[in-house]
Amino acid sequence: MRNKLVFFIFLMLLGNMNLEAQQALWGAPGIVSPEVKEDKTVTFRFQAPDAKEVKISGDWMPAQGWIPGSEAMTKDDKGIWSYTSAALASDLYSYSFNVDGVKTTDPNNVYVIRDVATVSNVFLVGGGKGDLYKVNAVPHGTVARRWYDSPGNSMTRRLTIYTPSGYEKGKEKMPVLYLLHGMGGDEEAWIALGRTSQILDNLIAQGKAKPMIVVMTNGNVAQEAAPGESNLNMYKPSFQLPNTMDGKFEETFADVIKFIESNYRVKAEKSGRAIAGLSMGGFHSLHISHFYPNTFDYVGLFSAAIVPNEKATSKVYENIDGTLKAQKDNGYKLYWIGIGKADFLYKNVTDYRAKLDGMGMKYTYRESEGGHTWTNWRVYLSEFVPLLFK
Amino acid sequence: MRNKLVFFIFLMLLGNMNLEAQQALWGAPGIVSPEVKEDKTVTFRFQAPDAKEVKISGDWMPAQGWIPGSEAMTKDDKGIWSYTSAALASDLYSYSFNVDGVKTTDPNNVYVIRDVATVSNVFLVGGGKGDLYKVNAVPHGTVARRWYDSPGNSMTRRLTIYTPSGYEKGKEKMPVLYLLHGMGGDEEAWIALGRTSQILDNLIAQGKAKPMIVVMTNGNVAQEAAPGESNLNMYKPSFQLPNTMDGKFEETFADVIKFIESNYRVKAEKSGRAIAGLSMGGFHSLHISHFYPNTFDYVGLFSAAIVPNEKATSKVYENIDGTLKAQKDNGYKLYWIGIGKADFLYKNVTDYRAKLDGMGMKYTYRESEGGHTWTNWRVYLSEFVPLLFK
Repeated sequence: MRNKLVFFIFLMLLGNMNLEAQQALWGAPGIVSPEVKEDKTVTFRFQAPDAKEVKISGDWMPAQGWIPGSEAMTKDDKGIWSYTSAALASDLYSYSFNVDGVKTTDPNNVYVIRDVATVSNVFLVGGGKGDLYKVNAVPHGTVARRWYDSPGNSMTRRLTIYTPSGYEKGKEKMPVLYLLHGMGGDEEAWIALGRTSQILDNLIAQGKAKPMIVVMTNGNVAQEAAPGESNLNMYKPSFQLPNTMDGKFEETFADVIKFIESNYRVKAEKSGRAIAGLSMGGFHSLHISHFYPNTFDYVGLFSAAIVPNEKATSKVYENIDGTLKAQKDNGYKLYWIGIGKADFLYKNVTDYRAKLDGMGMKYTYRESEGGHTWTNWRVYLSEFVPLLFK
Repeated sequence: MRNKLVFFIFLMLLGNMNLEAQQALWGAPGIVSPEVKEDKTVTFRFQAPDAKEVKISGDWMPAQGWIPGSEAMTKDDKGIWSYTSAALASDLYSYSFNVDGVKTTDPNNVYVIRDVATVSNVFLVGGGKGDLYKVNAVPHGTVARRWYDSPGNSMTRRLTIYTPSGYEKGKEKMPVLYLLHGMGGDEEAWIALGRTSQILDNLIAQGKAKPMIVVMTNGNVAQEAAPGESNLNMYKPSFQLPNTMDGKFEETFADVIKFIESNYRVKAEKSGRAIAGLSMGGFHSLHISHFYPNTFDYVGLFSAAIVPNEKATSKVYENIDGTLKAQKDNGYKLYWIGIGKADFLYKNVTDYRAKLDGMGMKYTYRESEGGHTWTNWRVYLSEFVPLLFK
């Protein structure tokens, strides 16, 4: 009897406490937000009986310049504000609430992702491309955070590495995709916002992609690691860091390749190497691939910045035309360029394509709707990966 | 010239946009919150010009039963609310704001941790035990999320594994600590709230702990993985799950050991195995270690639940006195029990100690201040780990 009582008290204290206490600890239990429905409309709910005005801002709403779009929520007689979206295209989305002028996260949604210096709630709408971003009942790869030695930067640095299901037990050497983030991002960006491990798990399980290792480095050479993960500990992240796009990352990228090829069972040859990145990471991929002009058979530029800062004096940018021609002459299997029609770098990329056309350097071009967004970068990754290592 | 202009536009668009746009994307840039000062007081700031009342609730404040303590913040003439704490003991803390009755996270702090179904901001105060929880300039281990086959549960399941710096390149077989979470937790709990990788990195670097592998499993056998990481994708986590503490986890723990010992370079023997856990994980450690009574030389019960539910019919609980005596007779090196004076399980643990005393089963007892908190569990881990594998 006493045993039963003690166990009951344990459960009661931990699991069945009164509503107010539960809410204090775990949010309002009756509220589900967001609720993604069969018809792909999504209902958001937020308890704030005393608020005057609650709005929701989601990244699917049309923005006004850099100001995200927002919609009013309506309050019911229990003080719960709600908003139901139109049917949304299948994707990963982020959103926040604004309560009487104060931006806040959704206390009923524990799924949050940091993008540079903002933490937002996220949700998934399936039934389309978003199914690739879901965890499905397929074999799952391993995702590790590991530190490597970078003599070129006189530091140890952190990276995120995806090894496909079966890698540990297998014997076959695997090809490697180096996948680079944009300005303000870090080694967490592609795995969190990019849904890289889910996309790779799913494409490999579907037989659409070869099993491959994906290496997500930190492209900010002033950093050892993402905010909170280095001995700077928890500081407020900033968007622009020292030594950003000054050539140092490209110069020292050999350290990354060396680490991977001496620590993993990989195809240490051009036909087993791909490099791709978004925005600043596209810039890095472009310049790394011509600076090491016989190293990568596959290059992907996603919404890439193209032109180096004139102040950058790195040897990486000294003779771009020459090293690009060397890259062309050495040969490669795929040079993939993706850009959204509304991207502020569209003109930049168009000029670069004209340059490549002028020198007879072949590329595959993918023009999408939209602009400089994770929606596009996940699509580009999903389309790029099946083309690799065939 | 055009190059320079394009680069300038790129930076301007991304890095130097107007204040309103910056705030929309990245929060108010001038606000630092929390600010941990030299004297260990901490100032919190929150911009809400139109709010009537803003409070802060932190886990260092005295709680009223299950209701966390809170303090009023005060508004300055710019509409920024602030609160400065007394000097805080060195530790990891969590907090939230309450704005006119609505709980919210701190938009200027990107460091958040999920505890069951609540996401809270966190910060670190150094200069004491919290220095063990910091990322310091020491060699860092690898943290991997990996899936293992659990035939006993007819599923593949996810675990988090810490391998110390040098593991990959070394040849020596390493000992293993199996580290188990509490009710509502999962394979992310110890690595996020427990700061396990930081504690291990630091203790190993200081020469206070032997290099060891730490395996953090998911103790909820109804789950394949933490919320958001299985094919259930993003759902609202609940505290109590089916099949919690019914014996199935203990019965199938052999699957975990088998996976680790056939996939890692480990000491596959009693002297190379430790098992410890908090609350429900302490319960699991207690019962696993007597159910497999000649398997672990080191056992740690942190604020442990003790007594099985009378409804649980598992063979694990059938003959506790007998298997416990077998465990005693087989011998072990350390049976460590830690509990806070204010813990609701204190009496429970006291009764268990009397039982152990009665049967002459030796243990090391650590009584701390406080209750059923991560503050205590991090301390227990920090004290337990140096005692292992000596």
